[in-house]
Amino acid sequence: MPQQTQQLRERLAQIQDLTRIAELLEWDQQTMMPPRGAELRAEALGTLARIHHELLVDAETGRLLDAASAQLNGDVESDDARLVRRARRLWNKATKVPTDLAAELARAGSAGQEAWAAARSEDDFGAFAPYLERNLELARRYADCFDEFDSPYDALLDDYQPQMTAAQVTVLFDQLKAELVPLIAEAAGHTVDDSLLHAEVPTAAQRRLVDEIVAVMGFDRQGWRLDDTVHPFAVSFGPDDVRITTRWDEHYWPTSLFGAMHECGHGLYEAGIGKELQRATLGQVDSLGLHESQSRLWENMVGRSRGFCGVLAPRISELFGGAFAGLDPDALFRAVNTVRPTLIRIEADEATYGLHIVIRFELEQELLNGTLSVAELPEAWNARVHDYLGIEVPSDAKGVLQDVHWSAGLFGYFPTYALGNMIAGQLWARVHAELGDLDDQIAAGELGGLRDWLRENVHRHGSRYTTEELLERVVGGPIAVEPFVAYLKHKLGDAYGVALN
Amino acid sequence: MPQQTQQLRERLAQIQDLTRIAELLEWDQQTMMPPRGAELRAEALGTLARIHHELLVDAETGRLLDAASAQLNGDVESDDARLVRRARRLWNKATKVPTDLAAELARAGSAGQEAWAAARSEDDFGAFAPYLERNLELARRYADCFDEFDSPYDALLDDYQPQMTAAQVTVLFDQLKAELVPLIAEAAGHTVDDSLLHAEVPTAAQRRLVDEIVAVMGFDRQGWRLDDTVHPFAVSFGPDDVRITTRWDEHYWPTSLFGAMHECGHGLYEAGIGKELQRATLGQVDSLGLHESQSRLWENMVGRSRGFCGVLAPRISELFGGAFAGLDPDALFRAVNTVRPTLIRIEADEATYGLHIVIRFELEQELLNGTLSVAELPEAWNARVHDYLGIEVPSDAKGVLQDVHWSAGLFGYFPTYALGNMIAGQLWARVHAELGDLDDQIAAGELGGLRDWLRENVHRHGSRYTTEELLERVVGGPIAVEPFVAYLKHKLGDAYGVALN
Repeated sequence: MPQQTQQLRERLAQIQDLTRIAELLEWDQQTMMPPRGAELRAEALGTLARIHHELLVDAETGRLLDAASAQLNGDVESDDARLVRRARRLWNKATKVPTDLAAELARAGSAGQEAWAAARSEDDFGAFAPYLERNLELARRYADCFDEFDSPYDALLDDYQPQMTAAQVTVLFDQLKAELVPLIAEAAGHTVDDSLLHAEVPTAAQRRLVDEIVAVMGFDRQGWRLDDTVHPFAVSFGPDDVRITTRWDEHYWPTSLFGAMHECGHGLYEAGIGKELQRATLGQVDSLGLHESQSRLWENMVGRSRGFCGVLAPRISELFGGAFAGLDPDALFRAVNTVRPTLIRIEADEATYGLHIVIRFELEQELLNGTLSVAELPEAWNARVHDYLGIEVPSDAKGVLQDVHWSAGLFGYFPTYALGNMIAGQLWARVHAELGDLDDQIAAGELGGLRDWLRENVHRHGSRYTTEELLERVVGGPIAVEPFVAYLKHKLGDAYGVALN
Repeated sequence: MPQQTQQLRERLAQIQDLTRIAELLEWDQQTMMPPRGAELRAEALGTLARIHHELLVDAETGRLLDAASAQLNGDVESDDARLVRRARRLWNKATKVPTDLAAELARAGSAGQEAWAAARSEDDFGAFAPYLERNLELARRYADCFDEFDSPYDALLDDYQPQMTAAQVTVLFDQLKAELVPLIAEAAGHTVDDSLLHAEVPTAAQRRLVDEIVAVMGFDRQGWRLDDTVHPFAVSFGPDDVRITTRWDEHYWPTSLFGAMHECGHGLYEAGIGKELQRATLGQVDSLGLHESQSRLWENMVGRSRGFCGVLAPRISELFGGAFAGLDPDALFRAVNTVRPTLIRIEADEATYGLHIVIRFELEQELLNGTLSVAELPEAWNARVHDYLGIEVPSDAKGVLQDVHWSAGLFGYFPTYALGNMIAGQLWARVHAELGDLDDQIAAGELGGLRDWLRENVHRHGSRYTTEELLERVVGGPIAVEPFVAYLKHKLGDAYGVALN
């Protein structure tokens, strides 16, 4: 390896270490930290962000990038070339942001999360409002650092879904909405008995089920952890230190099971990134949409499939006992695929989920461009939920305060969830084409074939390819709505015993 | 505050944040991290150490120190003056150490700990030897960076017990040894029935006792955590995020109780540092000897006192039940003060403990000056244990491999434990002189008076004063052996029912 490329790699490795360290501090804040630790934690995250930023935008980084570029001699295919391309992109963006702003974004995001958690448990939007104002102001200042984007929103979205614009998302979302609205109306005509989802199940029994199922997926105690948290997430310190979280609700056991499968899907992505990319800028997933495709694929396409319900039912019978004795796989399959408008995004079914995202995507654009004020937000939220989902929001805790994202300063992040569903649909179609007996494998509780295929085709590459390039390689085209909708219609048709159009 | 002093403070606050972050990463490594995470963790700690070092030795730090010094106008008493003094001392030392060496020390220390843990569980010193060689080589290179010390050992000791030399330690240790050897011989003539310490107690019951007792000491769930680990330690991210650890042995319950009291003593120090010193260079304890004085004071002088045994006995009766029903406080007091040479330092009684330290102090000096090789170390260890404690070492796991320190590159650290005992003896005498009814308070389970006195006189100052200055203020002189020995003779005399000379 040419010397200056090596120097660049070492510098980028240190920058990557700092990213991982900040993520670990955030994991600790969400799972371990005693409540009073929040104030100092925010300062520490601010310091890390400052140093990360200074190291990235340092003139020496730019010099090494230039030298490494020159050494490529026109090569654009090698890992070195891809590393330079990605690092250049990060460097270009970071150099436009003042260090003080980078540090303040991290500090305010950490403080905002603590304020949000308190406000949510008190159902007090007013207590949270000043933090949201502050985060919005900082997000606008951050977006103002760039002139290559058409709108502030595009500048933010680009951090989570590189090279995608709000206009492109809108096209996809309009198409999605057009498909989902009649599908939901159709499904709502079929009553499903999902009372078994609400039967009381002690946390200890849920924990045994979750431990079993994530082990089948690939969770390995030598390199993974599973912890409790309020707002589940997954993070890794590298492929050999993957941390997933879940939460437990004794009156709604699917939260823990499907939440854990979701985060385990994220974890498998992190665990599957090639060891040769460890500590490297290419060792991160390119976009959140791509990341989310894995979590939702495992949670929904595997976890709520007819075949896997056949695996789950006897285990639930045995581990939960009582009302679950002799649980019928068909009944389970129908119950976990109930389509019904509800309040909480992360508990929404696959069909209504997309509308939750559209609501957030619209509102956050309005907040950023100033057509909606923070004071008006709760009312706007409730009205939008009424319009799109046809239900009333009883409290801000179950409405505008339900998600952590805006409190952490994450604007432009929500669309990636729905994009993830679309990508999952595309990958799901492709893996079925390649593994003819995949449904049989899943019905037999054999998930290794799917995991290996995803690792080989998606996970191991980290961000060697852009999301667009990867999708071109694997599914032959850009993000599309159709495969996801076709999958959903097929499954819901199967569950409800009718053909859905 | 003058502007340049403010700039210095902000820079030092960031450096302090990095110290806390590294400590949190180490806490995570010892309590949470999945085993395979070790390799990347070592890299991350190396990166943090590198950045910490670069920020500290940066020319700008020196310039700010000069400017802040000039602004003091001869003031030596204010917190600003003390901050400049302490920061100058750290800066002077750090500027002599190359950044690569600082990073490598951190990386090798992290890797060494993992190798040690594996070697200890396999009882395989040979597997650990190369890591110890590497740590010794790095420690020598580190010591070689300085020419103001008389020996490599002094350069290392100074990091843990500033301004103290091996020669001074030797004087104190010779005096300690002269007192302890006849005391141990005398005590060994009195047989104590301590079988109750070895009765089986389930971890869950031990946990309930520990939770109760640390709560009485001042543990507060809003600002503290207690976790399990292999080699107990305490650390803090600041006064409002204190983390202590303990381990559980179903066949020797005092390990968890007294270990937790020990670490809680450390935690009270961290929690008691003045809020105004948060994120400041003065917000760290000046020396490990001072820190250890608190852990050992709470563990032994409180925990193993006649009065507190009267508090413990009924709680143990109730929580442990079975063989512990109606536990006699006198029997407990005698049992937990049994003097008997044993193999494991952290389980040693207060009298033999000092000899464990002397053995390590002697051996690590020989390792560093090259008169003892790593290959010869196990045999030398066993011989020294035979000579000083009169017992045979059955395995390296229970001998030279028992402690984590050398694996983490910590040479010159061990003496601070025995210095801590001495300081604890001095503080114990002083607090009794000031709080006439302290023994009655302790016998009533009231520990707030002691905690407040320690906070007011010791904890809140952080490193505003050097250890020497603090002791001069509080006990009127430097570290001394006599008060500790007098305390020990009095207690053992009381326990054994004889006068010990």
